[in-house]
Amino acid sequence: MYQSECAEYIIPVRDALDVLYGRWKLPIIISLTFGSRRFKQIIEEIPGLTDKSLSKELKELESNQLITRKVYDSFPPRVEYSITEHGRSLSKVINELRDWGNQHRKKIIGN
Amino acid sequence: MYQSECAEYIIPVRDALDVLYGRWKLPIIISLTFGSRRFKQIIEEIPGLTDKSLSKELKELESNQLITRKVYDSFPPRVEYSITEHGRSLSKVINELRDWGNQHRKKIIGN
Repeated sequence: MYQSECAEYIIPVRDALDVLYGRWKLPIIISLTFGSRRFKQIIEEIPGLTDKSLSKELKELESNQLITRKVYDSFPPRVEYSITEHGRSLSKVINELRDWGNQHRKKIIGN
Repeated sequence: MYQSECAEYIIPVRDALDVLYGRWKLPIIISLTFGSRRFKQIIEEIPGLTDKSLSKELKELESNQLITRKVYDSFPPRVEYSITEHGRSLSKVINELRDWGNQHRKKIIGN
């Protein structure tokens, strides 16, 4: 018996998790929330993130309309990534995750 | 140059993601938010979840103090899972993910 009340939460939360899946998407969104970035700048801001992972994640974030990719007609061509309004709408999710992460650390590790 | 303002978000969000990692933990927390459940009841409420995955996820959720496992001294023994106060503190994260998931579906799929 599939509890519809429960499903009202599980289905949209699963939709969100399917888009934000993995360790890197939200940190990349956070980095771009602070301003447009070039590839290397994003790498510098997120410890442990490899070029290969970043390339893959940027493509997925772009396909979900959370970021845009702009190529500047210079030589060599300059590529810059920016957050979209839809990407910015994740700010409440990010704030709640930040607060809960801090709370969890205090509870589990005690600092 | 590691932007400390950016790190103030990325570190706790990563802490939260490390605990909530994967497709099943938040749906299991949602299910238990609606009341204590037995193993089979959780399986029924979350489409696609296998016994093997649920066993693994329940152990991890328990080790992070998000749920408790109670064995009733009946024959055969009855096992029931319940959410803890720490688990309940995820309600704001869950509400924001639900709202964003609904919003994302409207934007991307248009319904």
